[in-house]
Amino acid sequence: MSDFVQDFVTVIPAGGVGSRLWPLSQPHRPKFLLDLLGTGRTLIQDTVDRVLPLSERVVIVTGERHAAGVGAQVPEVPEANLVTEPSPRDSMAAIALAAALIEERWGPQIMGSFAADHIIPDSAAFRETVAQAAAAARLGKVVTIGITPTEPSTAFGYIEMGDELDGAARHVTAFTEKPDADTAAGMLARGGFVWNAGMFVMRTDVLLGHLDRLQPALAGGVREIAAAWDSEARAEVLARVWPTLTKIAIDHAIAEPVAAEGGVAVVPASFEWHDVGDFDSLGELSGAGGEPVAIGRAAAVGTVGARGAIVVGGTKPVVVVGVDDAVVVESDEAILVTVRSAAQRVKDAAGSLPSTM
Amino acid sequence: MSDFVQDFVTVIPAGGVGSRLWPLSQPHRPKFLLDLLGTGRTLIQDTVDRVLPLSERVVIVTGERHAAGVGAQVPEVPEANLVTEPSPRDSMAAIALAAALIEERWGPQIMGSFAADHIIPDSAAFRETVAQAAAAARLGKVVTIGITPTEPSTAFGYIEMGDELDGAARHVTAFTEKPDADTAAGMLARGGFVWNAGMFVMRTDVLLGHLDRLQPALAGGVREIAAAWDSEARAEVLARVWPTLTKIAIDHAIAEPVAAEGGVAVVPASFEWHDVGDFDSLGELSGAGGEPVAIGRAAAVGTVGARGAIVVGGTKPVVVVGVDDAVVVESDEAILVTVRSAAQRVKDAAGSLPSTM
Repeated sequence: MSDFVQDFVTVIPAGGVGSRLWPLSQPHRPKFLLDLLGTGRTLIQDTVDRVLPLSERVVIVTGERHAAGVGAQVPEVPEANLVTEPSPRDSMAAIALAAALIEERWGPQIMGSFAADHIIPDSAAFRETVAQAAAAARLGKVVTIGITPTEPSTAFGYIEMGDELDGAARHVTAFTEKPDADTAAGMLARGGFVWNAGMFVMRTDVLLGHLDRLQPALAGGVREIAAAWDSEARAEVLARVWPTLTKIAIDHAIAEPVAAEGGVAVVPASFEWHDVGDFDSLGELSGAGGEPVAIGRAAAVGTVGARGAIVVGGTKPVVVVGVDDAVVVESDEAILVTVRSAAQRVKDAAGSLPSTM
Repeated sequence: MSDFVQDFVTVIPAGGVGSRLWPLSQPHRPKFLLDLLGTGRTLIQDTVDRVLPLSERVVIVTGERHAAGVGAQVPEVPEANLVTEPSPRDSMAAIALAAALIEERWGPQIMGSFAADHIIPDSAAFRETVAQAAAAARLGKVVTIGITPTEPSTAFGYIEMGDELDGAARHVTAFTEKPDADTAAGMLARGGFVWNAGMFVMRTDVLLGHLDRLQPALAGGVREIAAAWDSEARAEVLARVWPTLTKIAIDHAIAEPVAAEGGVAVVPASFEWHDVGDFDSLGELSGAGGEPVAIGRAAAVGTVGARGAIVVGGTKPVVVVGVDDAVVVESDEAILVTVRSAAQRVKDAAGSLPSTM
């Protein structure tokens, strides 16, 4: 238990279908419930495995329709710690409700919020960084973990780092939106920027205090729901209050305004981190390039005049003839055929079928 | 029965796997046993349907491993008329054995030989042409049915036509091999050429007479086998003689040398005729171009930024994203993903899989 952090509660927001991973992902089977890498563990199972050694408790916030799937996949998390949202109201409502519920049940804690569908191969390095972030969070900061850029990516927001704060932590000067290529190259050349991976560590009382000030209606709503959660009034209060909560991302509600006030710190980290959003990035992660790559399937893959094929799922042999970078995905429901360069357009695939699907 | 032709026996050579149609075609399930167009009838069933109205009898020559499949698909053909070859020995042996067996059983007849896997949508026009060919065959000619070219195709041999013979028939000056593009364009511009579709109509005694002269060993062999066919000696004679028969195509054994002697006639025909050899030509026949085409399947096909998709077989919805002219084929055994321009290379698909397949 050397990774254990006192009074630390991990909150895992488990939302988002991952529509560019169709037909693996489906409304009833979102990305975080998938064994995307074919390792035998799903993304949320990997996430729970990664945080368990450092957490006193783990709380998962997910949609009502996915609660059963989550519960079945991660029996280590007590059912009482599965917080179900009646409908998606963006990340701030989910995280704030978790914070309020944690305070109701166990008093103020350090909480770390980590998405259910990210891939971090080096769990030990991750936990070491979280421990450093928790140390800064005890001082009253909202702490984010930033990923040291390895390329001028335009896929992530960037965090500008200022002076050193304490230990590994540094002040945050600003959060920036996803940049264009020139801006990204400039930031990489200048240095002092890290990728925003959406990982936050902070005291529940600090978070809720900021929220009281910056989003008072949202703060009041989640506090009311949390107070009723472990009582017979839960359903009534949830049904009445939840739909009224402000839909806003934690970046806009907390991270950006509090950073402007000097209240946010960042711990830069150099562990490998992936937010696999489509089959192109899945292929990159799986080493596709020349020989065909098979993910989550046992049957053979053959190619004739075709480089870099990625074949995911399914039980029949697949042969690709004359299509470089082909992507073939078979789920119980459907078959997708595309190429890596078109991976982003897969989000429209399900919609291209007749609505009887 | 207006199409009926007196003393006419149709011979259907049913051979050839069709390896460019894998995985629909397989060694155990050759092209002629496939419902290639998704009409509910297989190619050999279509062929038998087409010839039954004009034939006194139908004889099918096929490989031993396909006899059961053929028998199940065309119960109209008596089992005694299924002639099974122990091994493939090219078209002349198959057709000559059928001719010899027909003479043994029923005396000299007019025989028409038509492949089991060609597509001819207008059956009535086909039968009308066969009747014209039979009339010329009665005069002692080897008669071929030539297809009037609609384009300078390099996929077929050409037949050069000479003077008029009788009725619709004309003398044949020469058979030519598949030409290059310039030669094909020249022939089309000059006129007087038709495509060689491998359809022959002739008296059995005329065919066997030419064979006695031109391929005496082959002629003697098939006559010996035919004499033993309907006796207990069949198995012994077949096992002893069949493997010794000369492997040669009917074009080289009969059509070319007899044409040089002035003994071949042609009836030019303008009915639509297709020898669908790969998924590109299947797509052309099925009207693929813009909207996706589904063949032999009930499930939906969707496309995102992809024109001209062809989806064959299978039961799951298929979506193609960003691949123009994609071809997706699912059989019980395997899935093929290719594009129409690579259709010829599908012949190597099965071989690209591990040999455990």
